[in-house]
Amino acid sequence: MLSLDKVFNAQLVLKNIIRETNVVRAYGIAPECELYLKPENLQITGSFKVRGSAYKIAMLSKEERKKGVIACSAGNHAQGVALAATKNGIKSLICLPDSAPISKIEATKGFGAQVCLVEGVYDDAYKKALELRDSEGYTFVHPFDDENVIAGQGTIALEIFHDLDNIDAIIVPVGGGGLISGIAYTVKQIRPAVKVYGVQAAGAPSMFNSIKDGKIECLDSVSTIADGIAVKQPGENTYDLVSKYVDDIALVSDDEVASSILALIEKQKMIAEGAGAVSVAAAMFDKFKLKGKRVVSIVSGGNIDVTSLSRVIDRGLRKSGRSTSLLIELIDKPGQLKEIARIIADCGGNVTGVQYVKGYTESINGCYLRIEMETRDWDHVNLITQSLQNEGFKIVE
Amino acid sequence: MLSLDKVFNAQLVLKNIIRETNVVRAYGIAPECELYLKPENLQITGSFKVRGSAYKIAMLSKEERKKGVIACSAGNHAQGVALAATKNGIKSLICLPDSAPISKIEATKGFGAQVCLVEGVYDDAYKKALELRDSEGYTFVHPFDDENVIAGQGTIALEIFHDLDNIDAIIVPVGGGGLISGIAYTVKQIRPAVKVYGVQAAGAPSMFNSIKDGKIECLDSVSTIADGIAVKQPGENTYDLVSKYVDDIALVSDDEVASSILALIEKQKMIAEGAGAVSVAAAMFDKFKLKGKRVVSIVSGGNIDVTSLSRVIDRGLRKSGRSTSLLIELIDKPGQLKEIARIIADCGGNVTGVQYVKGYTESINGCYLRIEMETRDWDHVNLITQSLQNEGFKIVE
Repeated sequence: MLSLDKVFNAQLVLKNIIRETNVVRAYGIAPECELYLKPENLQITGSFKVRGSAYKIAMLSKEERKKGVIACSAGNHAQGVALAATKNGIKSLICLPDSAPISKIEATKGFGAQVCLVEGVYDDAYKKALELRDSEGYTFVHPFDDENVIAGQGTIALEIFHDLDNIDAIIVPVGGGGLISGIAYTVKQIRPAVKVYGVQAAGAPSMFNSIKDGKIECLDSVSTIADGIAVKQPGENTYDLVSKYVDDIALVSDDEVASSILALIEKQKMIAEGAGAVSVAAAMFDKFKLKGKRVVSIVSGGNIDVTSLSRVIDRGLRKSGRSTSLLIELIDKPGQLKEIARIIADCGGNVTGVQYVKGYTESINGCYLRIEMETRDWDHVNLITQSLQNEGFKIVE
Repeated sequence: MLSLDKVFNAQLVLKNIIRETNVVRAYGIAPECELYLKPENLQITGSFKVRGSAYKIAMLSKEERKKGVIACSAGNHAQGVALAATKNGIKSLICLPDSAPISKIEATKGFGAQVCLVEGVYDDAYKKALELRDSEGYTFVHPFDDENVIAGQGTIALEIFHDLDNIDAIIVPVGGGGLISGIAYTVKQIRPAVKVYGVQAAGAPSMFNSIKDGKIECLDSVSTIADGIAVKQPGENTYDLVSKYVDDIALVSDDEVASSILALIEKQKMIAEGAGAVSVAAAMFDKFKLKGKRVVSIVSGGNIDVTSLSRVIDRGLRKSGRSTSLLIELIDKPGQLKEIARIIADCGGNVTGVQYVKGYTESINGCYLRIEMETRDWDHVNLITQSLQNEGFKIVE
């Protein structure tokens, strides 16, 4: 049974393994409320996950420690288990589908785990891990549906209360539900007036649907940039704890998540992964009507690969009018490019790409010009398009 | 005169204005040494600059406070002065060249300053600020060459010693020299055995050259992505303090800076601006031979605009083989694109762009295909190019 004693005990046990991440005030992201962040993206391994695994592992018997632990994950859980096992001086084996990205495999090995690559997808690796548990006597470390894992995640609530008083609400990302179970349980024992809100990605609403319908449900498929919380089915323990202690759950879109990742970069100088940013997106787009309230969003992790990050930034730049692509119809006669280049330069746009595109323009001699440029904002974009139109150019898109 | 008393006093005065940023261990960036970061990019206003201005302003007389302060800057100094003045309840006026980016103007206003846009470049704005100082009685807050400003920056050394023992060296970005003067002075009074190293961008080596030649020198021009430390001439006070207390100065290239920005994103989940990352670049590329040493790099700021950040990431991805562009010579017959797409897909490359390019190929029917793709690393790129060549395609670049 989960108990407050376990959460306090976990805090002591984790003292020399994890970082106590400090709650910071976040300005300019959700101006309607007084927003603070609990930056678990700055946690060692780049995610809160290490808390739960490390407490689980510390509580193993001498016999269990001798045999070692096993887990199945290609992400934050794998690295948390690997680091926690290594710090406790015990063996860890992580089962991964062989399609897992090399970078994740290397990161897991880097924290001292042995890696077992399993042909197939996640479910195959999971099956293999259970087989090995049974045949070799390893202890299986579940990513969320385990009371010691949940107690470990609950330490985050203790740290928040240590740093900050008079909190109205805590917003928590929800995948399998381990993080929010630990936090909500702890909060409701100590400061029951503080609201605990959960956030899922609209493309993976497993806990949201299950709570709404009053029973555990399994999604056929999930699709979101918040891959760390793309979980098809809540755990049994976590479902019960969320039902009992969580005040509300909301969904955020991938575009909202991307905007919040960009806001965290610009305003807080920090990198969050999609799953880590859903709680910030919920504050930014006011999903829980928290005007004037003191709110803490848990930024649960920062392990986003740079390629995805680059795409998120590009998307954010386009959406905020700071990067623009225009398709301009040309009459195929000399001097057109020069004219367009002059108009854009006069308006202060910075051209980053030019391409002639053939196409069925009105005139048989016509063609299109694709211009990529850096702009300041939507007003600036409108200034440029207006100036081009004033000089007779037709902007197709 | 600068004194240790002033630095200690500054620490007390700044207590309720600034954030005490915690020193963090950085793994995997400079594996040769034991690297820690002092993350002043997470400082309020996104830069250490607020420390110096806030102490300077707090020390003003009642009469001076009544008249207000003036400064000239389009960057971190402007925001520091604005915030410090607002928190002290006094008026601030910031002179900016009218070419300054709107985002910087807005940020400065956002911290409560009045902004005076001056036609021309930085030097014109500077002249205007001095005029207004003389005519209106404002106190001019120099960005670096002022003992109270320097004392404010020195508080960083006190915080580092509070967080960490047995430090061998502290690495500090150098522009005008205010930050390193405060840190080096404080370090050498308290822990003289700790080495203090300075880092400048190779494209703006003003302090480096001046120290080497034994006299203050002025550069004709500066060019670096580390724009926050692109200063043409050291201050008189800072030159003296650096001569006396700094152990060595090194230069880093823009490519080294870009690599360190990317490493900070991937390993530490934090955003640094170019100027803020030079100290990390110096550790990463071992400019001071610090193998096995315990080293603290000051990440002095994080105010990089997202467009630049996006470019830095793109460059980093290309340099590490995670984003690749190939120009492939084609014979102009059906089925070529299909073949190439198949080979790349079989190798696990992810195509992100395709373009036919006309050109003078050997055959009159030939043309080129430009393929953009996401790859895992250089080995992966080589695998793909090798596979294409094995099937008879000629890769031009």
